[in-house]
Amino acid sequence: MNTNQFGTVHLVGAGPGDPDLLTVKAQKLISKCDALVYDSLVPVELLALVSSNCQLHSVGKRRGHHSVPQRTTNDILFDLSKSYSCIVRLKGGDPFLFGRGAEEASYLHKKGVPVQVVPGVTSGIAAPAYVGIPITHRLAGSSVTFVTGHEGIDKKRPAVNWRSLAKSSDGIVIYMGVHNLKFISAELIAGGMNPETSAAVIEQGTVIGQRYIKSPLVKLFDRVQEENLRSPAIVVIGSVVDFQVEACSPKPAEVTFPIPI
Amino acid sequence: MNTNQFGTVHLVGAGPGDPDLLTVKAQKLISKCDALVYDSLVPVELLALVSSNCQLHSVGKRRGHHSVPQRTTNDILFDLSKSYSCIVRLKGGDPFLFGRGAEEASYLHKKGVPVQVVPGVTSGIAAPAYVGIPITHRLAGSSVTFVTGHEGIDKKRPAVNWRSLAKSSDGIVIYMGVHNLKFISAELIAGGMNPETSAAVIEQGTVIGQRYIKSPLVKLFDRVQEENLRSPAIVVIGSVVDFQVEACSPKPAEVTFPIPI
Repeated sequence: MNTNQFGTVHLVGAGPGDPDLLTVKAQKLISKCDALVYDSLVPVELLALVSSNCQLHSVGKRRGHHSVPQRTTNDILFDLSKSYSCIVRLKGGDPFLFGRGAEEASYLHKKGVPVQVVPGVTSGIAAPAYVGIPITHRLAGSSVTFVTGHEGIDKKRPAVNWRSLAKSSDGIVIYMGVHNLKFISAELIAGGMNPETSAAVIEQGTVIGQRYIKSPLVKLFDRVQEENLRSPAIVVIGSVVDFQVEACSPKPAEVTFPIPI
Repeated sequence: MNTNQFGTVHLVGAGPGDPDLLTVKAQKLISKCDALVYDSLVPVELLALVSSNCQLHSVGKRRGHHSVPQRTTNDILFDLSKSYSCIVRLKGGDPFLFGRGAEEASYLHKKGVPVQVVPGVTSGIAAPAYVGIPITHRLAGSSVTFVTGHEGIDKKRPAVNWRSLAKSSDGIVIYMGVHNLKFISAELIAGGMNPETSAAVIEQGTVIGQRYIKSPLVKLFDRVQEENLRSPAIVVIGSVVDFQVEACSPKPAEVTFPIPI
């Protein structure tokens, strides 16, 4: 298959929000690309890096609507590759960790479009770090599991075995877990996790508006309700939370996030 | 406690090796710091970013010797903070995921030294990405566990329950797992993991010299022996390996890595 008829699509990790956590590689690509496709987990300030003749395309949530379906995003990327030589598909965090980057890569590759992945800083590490919480510590274990709490929306995804995870991983970092937190907490405790296990929820990690709470697991859902914490948020569960050094937290970035509609 | 007598120590993630995967924040700090403390998982080319009057300190492995003990590294950082205003402690990957960053942060904070963490791109995501392997995929599960295979060196670390992990996490990413791979594979299979589960080992991920193999779990150790793969390496185990899109792999960076002795 001749691929020269198509431009290259770069699946780029935008990092967790703070523009300073963008990689040098991502910054270069955003600055030079002809077209940029972004979702709602990217701050406005990153879009300002593009050149004046770059085509911008949002595939994020719109008022009263769901996100653009994956199939539509795939089609947009394919169409752009016919007209432009350098396309950036900018995704919050990292494209290959809960980013569906591999699906887009596979789709484009099968169509003959050259595609390249650019790893990024993931929110599951950076959001806890911005409140001084490490996700591993030598005295708190040897493992950490990254898991999505957002199962309902996509029936194709196998269910998480929370009860089994409760005793196998020393730490748990949950992406998109706020909506489902009551169920998740109950399952972890039912699976044998100590109800007093330390936990934290960080909303809008690394960017202005960042808030967080810490609580024993058994009270975590109630505390989140009380403080009205919402998505986007990262949940950390495990004794690693006790090794927080709050004084080392960087200042959240003053950006516009999420992108206003 | 008056902290003004001390400079600030920045615990900075250097990323997985490719200098283009450094964050913008890390790049700025390395360029302006007065002193830089680095280990052997950082390429020479990153050290070239410092200013001409920056003090460089290696705490990496020396020929025939182990790494500098953590206590010594802590002391070096503390001493430097008395003389310089901006110190960078550069660590391969991310400081808060198997980076012992929280230990250094805690030590320095207790001494009254201002300390800041700067998250980085972790090798457990980037090394697989540089061979086109995602670490999660919607059709391959909802979770991935990051775990260290390097238990022997540090008796303070709780042992990994590999048998339990075998059935609870959809994917497993092992840091420093090559030496222990025979034991780990046997334990995962004993714990109920299908011996035919797909796996991959990536040596020197993201930098020149990068090599990798793929194999069913049951043959993984033998394949690693045959190809003589060595540390630093990342192991990925799970059906997610089957979703590899090799064509999207970025080109490894042409750097000098690890730092020659």
